[in-house]
Parts: sequence; structure tokens; C-alpha cells
Amino acid sequence: MLKTVRIQALWRQSLGRHAPKQKQLRVLSRPYSTKSAKPTGSVIPLLGLTAVISMAAHEISSILGEDSVSYDDDDIETHGFSDWASTNSTGRAVAIVYPRSTEDVSKIAAICSKYGVPMVAFGAGSSIEGSFSSPHSGIVIDFTYMDKVVATHPDDMDVVVQPGVNWVDLNKSLEAEGLFLPLDPSPTATIGGMVSTNCSGTNAFRYGTMKDWVLNVTVVLADGKVIKTRRRPRKTSAGYNLTSLFVGAEGTLGIVTEITLKLAVVPKETSVAVISFPTVKDAASAATKVIRSGLQLAALELMDDVQMQVVNRHGGESVRMKNLDESPTLFLKFSGPTQEGVQADISQLQNLIKSCNPGKSYFARSKQEETDLWAARKEALWTMTSIKPEGHALWSTDVAVPISRLAEIIELSKKDAESLGVFASIIGHVGDGNFHEAMMYDPKNTAQKAAVQDAAYKMVGRALEMDGTVSGEHAIGMGKMNSLVDELGGDTIEVMKRLKQALDPKWILNPGKVFALPAGSTAVAAKRLE
Amino acid sequence: MLKTVRIQALWRQSLGRHAPKQKQLRVLSRPYSTKSAKPTGSVIPLLGLTAVISMAAHEISSILGEDSVSYDDDDIETHGFSDWASTNSTGRAVAIVYPRSTEDVSKIAAICSKYGVPMVAFGAGSSIEGSFSSPHSGIVIDFTYMDKVVATHPDDMDVVVQPGVNWVDLNKSLEAEGLFLPLDPSPTATIGGMVSTNCSGTNAFRYGTMKDWVLNVTVVLADGKVIKTRRRPRKTSAGYNLTSLFVGAEGTLGIVTEITLKLAVVPKETSVAVISFPTVKDAASAATKVIRSGLQLAALELMDDVQMQVVNRHGGESVRMKNLDESPTLFLKFSGPTQEGVQADISQLQNLIKSCNPGKSYFARSKQEETDLWAARKEALWTMTSIKPEGHALWSTDVAVPISRLAEIIELSKKDAESLGVFASIIGHVGDGNFHEAMMYDPKNTAQKAAVQDAAYKMVGRALEMDGTVSGEHAIGMGKMNSLVDELGGDTIEVMKRLKQALDPKWILNPGKVFALPAGSTAVAAKRLE
Repeated sequence: MLKTVRIQALWRQSLGRHAPKQKQLRVLSRPYSTKSAKPTGSVIPLLGLTAVISMAAHEISSILGEDSVSYDDDDIETHGFSDWASTNSTGRAVAIVYPRSTEDVSKIAAICSKYGVPMVAFGAGSSIEGSFSSPHSGIVIDFTYMDKVVATHPDDMDVVVQPGVNWVDLNKSLEAEGLFLPLDPSPTATIGGMVSTNCSGTNAFRYGTMKDWVLNVTVVLADGKVIKTRRRPRKTSAGYNLTSLFVGAEGTLGIVTEITLKLAVVPKETSVAVISFPTVKDAASAATKVIRSGLQLAALELMDDVQMQVVNRHGGESVRMKNLDESPTLFLKFSGPTQEGVQADISQLQNLIKSCNPGKSYFARSKQEETDLWAARKEALWTMTSIKPEGHALWSTDVAVPISRLAEIIELSKKDAESLGVFASIIGHVGDGNFHEAMMYDPKNTAQKAAVQDAAYKMVGRALEMDGTVSGEHAIGMGKMNSLVDELGGDTIEVMKRLKQALDPKWILNPGKVFALPAGSTAVAAKRLE
Repeated sequence: MLKTVRIQALWRQSLGRHAPKQKQLRVLSRPYSTKSAKPTGSVIPLLGLTAVISMAAHEISSILGEDSVSYDDDDIETHGFSDWASTNSTGRAVAIVYPRSTEDVSKIAAICSKYGVPMVAFGAGSSIEGSFSSPHSGIVIDFTYMDKVVATHPDDMDVVVQPGVNWVDLNKSLEAEGLFLPLDPSPTATIGGMVSTNCSGTNAFRYGTMKDWVLNVTVVLADGKVIKTRRRPRKTSAGYNLTSLFVGAEGTLGIVTEITLKLAVVPKETSVAVISFPTVKDAASAATKVIRSGLQLAALELMDDVQMQVVNRHGGESVRMKNLDESPTLFLKFSGPTQEGVQADISQLQNLIKSCNPGKSYFARSKQEETDLWAARKEALWTMTSIKPEGHALWSTDVAVPISRLAEIIELSKKDAESLGVFASIIGHVGDGNFHEAMMYDPKNTAQKAAVQDAAYKMVGRALEMDGTVSGEHAIGMGKMNSLVDELGGDTIEVMKRLKQALDPKWILNPGKVFALPAGSTAVAAKRLE
């Protein structure tokens, strides 16, 4: 598991450290709403708040040992700000604590509960919606040292892990058993963060999202009590589905400290095809045809012309050498237990898309070519980031719509972004009706920033008009709190808040995420806000 | 949708009407626990309770029309007792109401909330754990007239339905689109009941359980407020997963009045194989080999020697003519978009099981043979019921365990049942580690009944020792309330109860299911209990 720590360290180096260390913490609830776009904020006097949180941190340190608590400015900064996030808070934690067991987390929570101090769980720090920021200050709980595989049950096809385990490392450790966790988020992601955001990635079309692979979670509640949501059967209809309630709750209902994951069999045979189309509409209509045929692909991804240009010109050597077509392109992964089956799938695919104006097609003829072709898709995000000019920022976000509306929303969103004259590219998990748009802008250019933000709002608003969701796989964080209200309406949000209130009556678990903190909350930070 | 009503009518005719109409309602919490097996109960004086509930029923009738409310004794009886259930209550509702819209249900709930009257949602009445019984009396809400398909979106592969829609009817109506809802519970089941129990059946190995096919639900809350859990994207990570919380909650958190279901593509090519083995262990080990190979079967079912005898001797003509082997048997369904793929799967299956002592094998050579072979599996439950001697009862229940333990728990449970000298058979969804045991007994023979009940407890206890669940697909109802505590522990139950309390503070939604009613609840029935 050393590699996890290394990956995290690299990741953290890449996080920006530009945010000024302020004497006042500005509580920023960035509006992402299509309706009410007025920024809201209030100012917390630092002294009293810091004193209470410090008291809690020192009590934690006295119980878990001094090494378990960091007050280091850089440490606090890297846990409070991310270059990758479209939304950041200028609020910062007072201390970072490093538990080594569920019991440690339980003790931390009991102390924080006693003082009414906010607790923010921290995984790999790769949230793009500000899920791990500290708008109400408090204590960050970092799971770097809870990175153990607790038990592997190959015969039951499950594994028990701590939240700090990196999923790439986990899958490497399972290779010998021929098993894997079939999610595919950022390679830096840890299981804890993946649970908290209900992540997915390119494999979701075939395998579903994180909620579909979590058998149970051990959770430390707001007051330090520890529960386990269920045992290890692959199927159950016993009692409320607490597991699915904690998955995707972004640490606002409890802190997940152990996870039992269902595993899938690594497909014996795979193949890859890359096919370009004259328009996004053609590509989407080919994708729809494939989906409706019942052909079970392992992945069905879309990259737009801009994104194809980026990987073609700035990708790794093997990708650049392919000289892929620079028009909207589908990336298809085939998989199955037999070569005959995979071959039959490929033939059927070729028949299906004949009538959809396919352009250049690349069908992998070797394992190496398979890797090289898929690399174009895998390198997309990193390549795009690498061409970002110094000082520029990336506004990256995603939505999901019913699949028949995908082509339309992508085309409209592209048009909007193009009209701004900024770099904008689109990557779509087209099999799920889910896509990401990334726009580059100069944050010092206030007008440009506002225009980019406005284009993102428009995209979110359109997704709702099409009966979709404001977040397909990155959760709500701080970035989309208002949009969530637009999506679900006040009464549904009210039900969510009732559940929050029932499990975290002091609102100290990751406050200011998913929903704004209510007046009347008894958390320290909230008291300061009144 | 007329057929739904006919199926329901037939079903209802088959329900027993033997329960005495008592002047006192005995609140029965039947113990199903391995730890505490003491029956608990208390007696509610009928008069005051009935008067309050009647008042609510009359108010409903005055608003929705007299036709919407039934006080008929037979109607009340068929809504309160089931021959199929291992657990029944002697409690009965005062009235049955028949809403025709979400608005109707909202009005009903507002009235019941005002009077603190229990509400029990009723689908097809096929629960085997007493999920729809009325231990605390109250009003039953029957969805017979809410049986409409509200909207079909073939391009998005989803459908919006009311809870009274029968799933077999629904799938027939979707045939032309080449789509289906890939669940497979009792053919009588309605979508509402399937949502409320998180049902599954033979297709779960490939397609998952009900929770995996519900995109959103419209829910009437305890006080009559209406919410919708989300819109129609196939993927989302926006806010708490309320959908999965209401699925499987057995109507105790809210009343589901509209459901958007994800649909799958009907596989173009299918095939069926039936393969016998000398022992359950051999069959299970063959199944494990298949699962670990990554071969994606459409279904992987097990029937034991007794169940094979039953279908072989008492099944339909086409099944009897097959003269299947009367030893533990695997039923395998293959499916895919191409014939070559299905053929490759069959060949791989044959290779895989060579070393697992397979006995007689039947591979379907035509569509007709496919249907005939699968009929043996489909007819199992009905055939078994048809041979039940007059006056005898069936104790039928299921558990699920991690897949490596399935052979062991089946063998131990069979031994237990055999030692009682009663008829006992086993059907397993072996791909999910889930199986049903059905035992026949003479309810007048108190010792035999107690022994059968004890054998069922033992099976449930063993499932827990093996890290499994007390209910794989039939939910908790009244039958397994104590077992749920054994499975999850007091603290996890406490969290579930906090959610219940948050959404149904008067505990009027299907009280006495999932958990026992707490003292201090303000529901009418609970008040009587104090």
C-alpha cells in the first residue's frame, strides 16, 4: 500500500497552494443554480472558533498521540484547496487528524461531537465540487494511514478494505485471483472518496456505479457510535438499505471507516475499437443503436473533436502515432469469457453502425494496440490539464440526462462554450447519458470567468429541463447545492434534511455540503454564523 | 390491464378465509429469532380503536366517494390473511380504501395522519412474511385501480407506472419495443409490492434486484405530502439515495404511488440447459466454477432431489415427459445478442463442469425444448403447492449467504428438515447465494408445527453465522423482525428507527413491520397498547 501514499503525495504536490491565508474565514456558498445566482456569504470571526476547534484537536492529540494531529499550514492548505475543483472555499480547517483505526475515528467523533466541531473526511483530494473543503472550518480526518486490505474472500468474490485504499492498488493486489473492482474514477481516488461520491467512470455502462459494488459499510456516526450496515450476502431484502444511503452522502451522515466490496471476474478476452463520426449526433445515434441492440459492451465512451485534437497532438507517443481522426469519436471496449463471443460482438457492432455515417475505424489487432487505442481515452483528462496555460483555471463539471437527449445537450453546450471563445472540450460516458464539459479560463479575467460559470449553469439547467440530474458522478459538494434544490424541489430536499437531522442533529458532519447549513444548527461554526 | 385484475382475483380466491373474526385483536409479534424465541403479544380492546379508524374511513369516503371504501368482511379478510405466508396476524383492518391517483393517496394519508390511524399498502397480497397484514388494525390502501402505465420512453429505455401494474402484463406491453423489466418474482406480483420488498427471482444473478431497476419513486409521506425522489437519468450522484431507501422499506417510510423503471433489452438469443449432480455440493461447486469463470449466464438455479421429484411427477405434461433426473439439478439460462456468442457460452460451460461429476444433461435443441425445460423450474412453487394435503400448511422462507457457504447451509438445512419427517424441498438462486426452503406441516399438530418453526429458525441462525442475511428477497414483514435485530445488532436497528421516526413520527405507516412498534408512538393503535 506504499504506492497509495506515493500517489497521494504526487497528487498533493499538484494541488495549488495559492489561496491566501486569511485572518478571516469567508464562508462561501457558491451558487450553481439556474434560478438564484446571487452569491451568499458571511464572515466568521476567527478567534473564538479556532479556540474551540483547537481545544478539540488537542484533546484528540492527547488520546491518539501527537503524531496523529497536524497544525502545519501547508498541510491545512492542501486539505482545503484544490486546483482541480470548480468550487473552492476560503475556509480552512484548524487541524488535520490521521486516524489508524475505526476506534480512532470513533474517539475523534466523540470529541468533535462534545465540542460541536465540524468533521470533514478526506480521501485523495480529487473532488471537483469542493466535497472536502472546510467552509465552516473544523477538523479534517485524513485516511492516509487507514489504507489496509482487511480481508479478501476470493471464493465469495468480495474484499474488506479501509477507506484509504487506492482502487488501482487494490485491483493490482487482486490480479492473481482474477477479480477486480469494476469502477474507474480518477486513478488517484481512494475507496472512501469513491463511496462518498458514488463514483463511476468508463465502466459504469457495463458494471454500474459504486453503490452497486458496496456490500456493507462500517460507519462512525456523528456522536462516535459505530455501526455496520449489514453482513456479506451478495443479495438481501432485510431492513432499510442503509448501505445505499451512506454511499453518495459525502460524509454528511456518517464517516465510513470500513467497506466490503463486491468483486467482478476480470474478463478473459477483451478488445477495443475507436470509430469517428462527422457529428456528435451521428456518434450518439450509433451509440443508441448499439445500446438498443442489447450488445453488452464493457465501455461506450465519446470524445468530441476538440478533445480528439488534444490527445492527438499532446497525448503520449503511442497515442500521437495513431493519428486519430479529429472529429467526434466513440471508444468501445468489448469483453467476455471467450474469444468467439467477443469476435461475434465486434461483427455485430460493425453491422449495427454501418448506417450511422462512421468515419475512420480502428479495431485493435493486438493487445498492444488495444492498450494504445484505449490510452487516448484514458489520457484525455491529464492531457487536457497539461496544456492549460500557466495561471489559467479549468471549470470542469458533469451532468446526466435520459440517453435519448444526450446528443442535443452536448451540441447545445458546445455551442455555448464556443461562443465564449474559450477552450472547451467534452468527454461523455455516452452509455449512461452522462458527460463532462471542461472549460479553460483566466480567473483574473472577471468577465470571462463569469461567462464560463454562466455556461456551466446553462448546461446544468438544460439537463434538468431534459429530466436529468445536475451531477452524474461527482456528487454535490459545495458546487451544486443550489442546483440540487432546482433538481429535486424543496419538499424532497426537506426529506433529505430530515434524515440528516436524524443522524447528525448538530450538523457537524461535513457541514455546508449537499445542503447549506441551517440556521439553528448547534455546530460551533453554525453558532458563529447566527 | 384487465388481466392484472383477473390475476389478482384468482389469487385472492386462493387465499384462505379461515381466520376467525374475533372481537379482540391479538397483536402478534411472531418470534423468528435464533436468540429470543418468546412470543410477545398484547390485546387491544376493539371498540375505541375501531371507532377512531371508522371515523377516518368515513372521512375518506366522503372525500373520495363511497365506492372507494369497503367495509366488507370478506374484503377485509382477504386483505389481512394469506395461506402463503409463514406469518399471519389475527389483527384486521377496519376498512379497505381504493385510491385512483397519487392525489387520492395524499388525501387518505392526510386524514389518517390527523387521526393517527395506521395505513397498510397492499399490492397483490403475495407476501410470505406478513408484510401486508394489519396487526395494529387501521386502513388498508389497495392499489388495484392504480394499474396504469403512465408513460413509456423506449428511446430512454424507461417506463413510468402506477404501483398496481402487474409485472407480467407490463413486460407483455413492452414486447414490441424489445424491452423488459428483468425481475422475476411471483407472476401475481405488482410493481408496488416488488418495490416495497426489493424483490428479485431467477434473473437477479444477471440483472440484480429491484433496487437496481428503479430510477425514481413518487412517495406520499405519512402526513400526505408528496415527493419524487429524483428525475430520469440512468446514473446520478446528486444528493442522498432516497430511491434506494424507499425500495425495500415495505411501506413503512412512505407510500409509493408512481415508479419510473429502467428497462433492459430483451436478449435476441437464448438457450437453456438442465444438468443433474449426485450431491448438492457437486452442483454448488459446478456453479461456483461457472461464476468464477466470468461466464455471464442469464440465470443459475438449483433444485434439490425432492423438488425434482415433485416437478417430475406432478408438473405439467411437457415437464413430466422429460423424465428429468431426480437428484440435485442446476438450471442454466444462456442469453446474448448473437447466436455465436450463446454457442460459445454453452461450449465453455460444458468444459467448465466436466470435472464436477455432472450426471444427466439436457441442452435445449429448439425454442420449444427451451420452454419445456425451463418450465420445470418455473412450475416448482405451484407444483409443490398443488400437492399440499388439505388442511396442511407450508412454511416457506429464504436466506442468503456468501456464495462459498451455500452448499453447506443447504445440506445442513435439508438434514434438519429430513429429521422431522416432513416434506421439505429446496430451490436456490445459487448464483446469488440465496435459497428457499419450503416445509409442509399439519398446523393442528402443535409439536410438528413447533419443530418446523424451529428448523426455520435454525436455518436463519446458520445464515447469520455464515455472515449472511435473514431475508434474501422476501423482506422482513412481521415474520423476521427479531431476526433482523440478530442480523444487524441494536445500534444499526436504532439508526433505521431514527430514519423511521424522522419520516413517520406517529409510526402510522405499516406499523409492526420491519420493527416492533415502540412504546411512546402516537399512532392510535400504539396508544391503545400503552
